Parts: sequence; C-alpha cells; structure tokens
Amino acid sequence: MNKIRIGVNGYGVIGKRVADAISAQDDMILSGITYNHYDYRARVAAQKGYRIYPKDSLKELISQSDVIVDCTPKGVGAANKAIYMDAGIKAIFQGGENSDIADLSFVAQANYQEAINKRFLRVLSCNTVGICRIVNALYRCGIVKKVRVTLIRRASDPWESHKSGLLNTVIPETKVPSHQGIDVKTIFKDLDIITLACVASHNLGHLHYMVVETNGPTLLNEVIRILDKEPRIAFINASDGFAGLHSTVELMRDLGRPRNDMWEVAVWKDLMSASSNEIFLTYQVHNEAIVVPENIDAIRAITGIETDGSKSIAKTNASLGITKTFL
Amino acid sequence: MNKIRIGVNGYGVIGKRVADAISAQDDMILSGITYNHYDYRARVAAQKGYRIYPKDSLKELISQSDVIVDCTPKGVGAANKAIYMDAGIKAIFQGGENSDIADLSFVAQANYQEAINKRFLRVLSCNTVGICRIVNALYRCGIVKKVRVTLIRRASDPWESHKSGLLNTVIPETKVPSHQGIDVKTIFKDLDIITLACVASHNLGHLHYMVVETNGPTLLNEVIRILDKEPRIAFINASDGFAGLHSTVELMRDLGRPRNDMWEVAVWKDLMSASSNEIFLTYQVHNEAIVVPENIDAIRAITGIETDGSKSIAKTNASLGITKTFL
Repeated sequence: MNKIRIGVNGYGVIGKRVADAISAQDDMILSGITYNHYDYRARVAAQKGYRIYPKDSLKELISQSDVIVDCTPKGVGAANKAIYMDAGIKAIFQGGENSDIADLSFVAQANYQEAINKRFLRVLSCNTVGICRIVNALYRCGIVKKVRVTLIRRASDPWESHKSGLLNTVIPETKVPSHQGIDVKTIFKDLDIITLACVASHNLGHLHYMVVETNGPTLLNEVIRILDKEPRIAFINASDGFAGLHSTVELMRDLGRPRNDMWEVAVWKDLMSASSNEIFLTYQVHNEAIVVPENIDAIRAITGIETDGSKSIAKTNASLGITKTFL
Repeated sequence: MNKIRIGVNGYGVIGKRVADAISAQDDMILSGITYNHYDYRARVAAQKGYRIYPKDSLKELISQSDVIVDCTPKGVGAANKAIYMDAGIKAIFQGGENSDIADLSFVAQANYQEAINKRFLRVLSCNTVGICRIVNALYRCGIVKKVRVTLIRRASDPWESHKSGLLNTVIPETKVPSHQGIDVKTIFKDLDIITLACVASHNLGHLHYMVVETNGPTLLNEVIRILDKEPRIAFINASDGFAGLHSTVELMRDLGRPRNDMWEVAVWKDLMSASSNEIFLTYQVHNEAIVVPENIDAIRAITGIETDGSKSIAKTNASLGITKTFL
C-alpha cells in the first residue's frame, strides 16, 4: 500500500500533536513540518527525525506532500488557502478559521462519510468537537429537543501561560450566545443549540455544563448506555477521586500519555442527572488534544484511503491509545 | 422613636458587614458583637467603638438586645437556636443553615410582608439572593416558564485565600442540580428552577449564566425595563470596561465603597440576549456583601418596626448607598 504523505504547516499546540499522531499511523508518512523560529519546539521536532522546513519553504513541503494539515494560527490558514489552491493540493484547516474556508466542517463520528474525497476540510475546534461528540450520540437516537451549554474555558494554553495574565477573575465572553453553538450547527444544521461561555483563571482545559431538553421522558440509564457506545467519550467518577479538571490531567500523567494528552471527552458519570425531560451533563474537554484524532480521520476522509468512518476511527483510536475506560 | 437593639453573634465575613450596616441605620442600635479570637478583626471592631463580647458571653449580649443576627459559621447557628429559644429572643440566621431553622427564608424584595413579626428568619445565601432578586422581577410579571442557572463560584473568601489552595483548576460540585435552585424554591415554591455550579480559581465573587424560558415571546427591551425597575440590581456594560469580575471590584474601590462591597447584583446589559422564548443573562454576585441589606430588612420585618417592605428597602438602600446606576 502506498502511504499518504502528509505535510504539517504550523508546529504549535495542534501541529506538533498532529505530527506525532501522523507518525503513529501505518497508512501515512509525515513528509515534514514547518516552523517559525528554531526554538525548543523545532529542535525537539528535529530530534524526532521530522523533516523541518522554515515557513518560507512551504512550497517545498507541499511538493513532497499529498495533503497539507494547516495548523497555523487563526487567520493564517485563510491566507494560506490560495497557496494550496495554486499548488493543487488538498488541505485540512483548523477550527479557528471561518467555516467557509472549507467544503465541510468535520467531526469524525458525526460526518466522516460526507467528507470523503473533499478538497478542503475544516476540523472543528476543541469545545465544538467535545459538544459534537456528545450531541451526535444523543441526536442520532432522536431524543434531543434542544441543547444549552455553559462553558468555563481555560485562560491560555500551558505553553503560553506567561501571556495570559488572567489571574483571579472570570471574564464573560462579549458575544452571547458564544460562537461554539453556532459552529456546532455547521454539522447539526437543524439542532436547537445555544452556548454561553466565560474564561476563568486556569489553563488545564475546559469544563462544560450541558442541559439537553429531550422530546420525552428519558431515563438516566438510557443516556449512560447511549454515551457508553459512542467512541472518544470516556466516563469518570467523582467518587474515584476525579475532583476537578486537574484530576484527569494527573491521571494522564500517571498513564504515561504523551504530553498528558486526553483525546477523549471525560464525562462525570456520577454527576449525571435527569429530570422528566432534561439531562444534565458535566464534562471536560482537553483543548490541546481533543482535535488530534479528528485531524487523522480527516486525512483519511479527504484522501479517500478509507471510506468507512468507523474503521478510520477505530484505527486512529488504536494507534493513539484512545480508550472508553481510563481505569 | 425607640431604637431596636441588635446583637450580632459572629464577626466574620458577614457579621462585620452586618454590624457596620446596623450602625448606619437611624432606627437601630448595635448592642454589640461576639468574637472568637482577639485578632485583627476584633481589634478593629473595638476601635470602631463596638461593644465586643467573647463568644462565651453570648447570654450577656442577648440580655442587651431585642434581636440577634446570627452570623456564626454554618451549623453553629442551628446549635445556637436553643439558646435564643430559652432567652425568648428573636433571631435572624444566615443561608448556611438549613431552611427549617426558621419560620421563613427571606429576601427583602421577594417576601418582606410575609416576614413581619416572625420569630425566626433565615436570610438566603449570596448566590440564592442574587438569583431571587432577578427571578422576582421577572416572575412577578408572569413571563417565567422555567429558569436554568450555571454558577461559576469563587474559590474562597479573600480573608482566607491561604486556605483555599484552589489553583489552576475548576471543581464541579458533586451535587447535580446544586443546592441554590432548591433554596430559591423556599421563596418561589412553584418555580421550575435548576442550578448547576462549579468552583473556579478566583476569589472575587460569583459569575452566573441564567437562561430563562418564557411563557411566550419576550422582547429584550421589555426585560431591560423590568430589571431596571427592580431595586438592588444594577446594569453594567462590557463596553464601559467591565471585562470581568475584577472590573466591578475595581469600580467599588474607585467609588470608595467600604471593603469594596457591591451590594447590588451587577447585570451585564450589553451581554443580555433573547431568542424567541428565552432570555440569557450574565451577572455577578458579590458573595461577601450581597446579603447585608437583606439582614437589615430582616431586622425591620422580624420586629415589625416597618411594615412596608418597599420603605424598608428604600431606607436600607439610602443608608448604605445602594444604587441603580454605578456611574
């Protein structure tokens, strides 16, 4: 089998994880990465044996690749699109770009089939992927009437903690509703979803409170069964010591996960609650890691090397160690 | 007019503020306060000229008082109730106690009339008072179908910042729904309200996201008009520099407020939003200060010295400087 050659343009929070994840696939080859500055990150990439290109050599990387995964900062991807068009290469963008940059916004378990052989895909951003994974499971069963989510977002990514300066406060977003719900609708077009978001003084990931109004009475056990069958969602229990966002990070460290990454949405099972026609969910989204498996699946979909979404998801899960049960 | 003599039992976060607020009333006299340790707080009380009683002299304070406001820590109030019963004195408890400690749970603008000449009252706790003030205004107009609130709570009160240790994480409450909604129902018995709460890494107060489902289409301007008429709710705007919880604290400092206290619920007017039958509200509750005016009004209600709630509220507001417009 000819392996697909993938270039990763941008080697920041997402890019370095996508590069590592590509290296873990048996149907892909990492053709190289681009870097801005030859700092500690680029040096580690070189140590790992990745071919590294200064960013003004992007065209050289493109010439060595079948697909580019664009992991550049918000807005830069949009500027790069013309280059990919000229070069006639397929590209995958990240959720920071507007939805119209691509033919389709992508979350593997929601719309893999639709993405097959597209020219441009856009992987949704972390919070939106987390919401989509949960909503997808419930929506497919036809029990969802509407969804309301409140997000307590992290202040910064850990590597740029010194830049955030968000100490001892909470900052409500100035757009109500916030953009995540609007972005979920790029996938679930008819879903009644509204999100509210604020940013708090921590950098370990996001906490969501989701209220799902159901079409009729729904038993908690039924919801647990539905989410239990869905890939990339894992249950945790407060009674097992999962007190807060920091607990899963410590677990990832104990499990030896690369960079403490949690690719799964962690749902507190013993905090799940239901009233007559509502479900209340508390879950954690690891902003750095959650979109990484989506990027791998997006590569398979856009190239058409795997036309069965569930097979791609299973392959990606196995290659990275994504699980349904942490313990 | 004979002034009512009030003893404040417990001189912590709430007690010291209630003592100061009593001193600012022309129909009340602070008969004294109790203290645990002769630390910096008790010393400042002595400097202010307050009569201070070691806590084992509570009966002495009772003998000099017509009403006791019990501001002792959660659970201690319940133990004190027998003492107040024996002494035949009226008492006001705080929201940390169970609702059955008192004849009535109290929020001034919601149920002042009902509280007149009761024996025992319980002032609701900070988050619940904040919710009740807003709900009261909307509920009275008959537009409320149901209320869902997500609370991002502060980690600790500022004076005990060293004890919280809540650094760089978010802790979901282990009860879903959280207790605040249940407590709101001690006042609005038929209200469909559910609250979800977590604790974050800051100590400047609470941020709430309230979703109100209305009985029919409701215009945003109508909601603004309703809240604008309600006492102890003040609008702020992100466009005026109110970026987060810290901004109002800085404003209180600039305004010369005692201890930076914000007795009002601060509602972001330019973050208000409405869909066809829902209203989305973002507001801040200052956990240390918000219950203070309720305690003053509770004193007037329990003694019957003022039988018109709106007059008591207006009097308390004037004495403390509670406003509808900060700027």
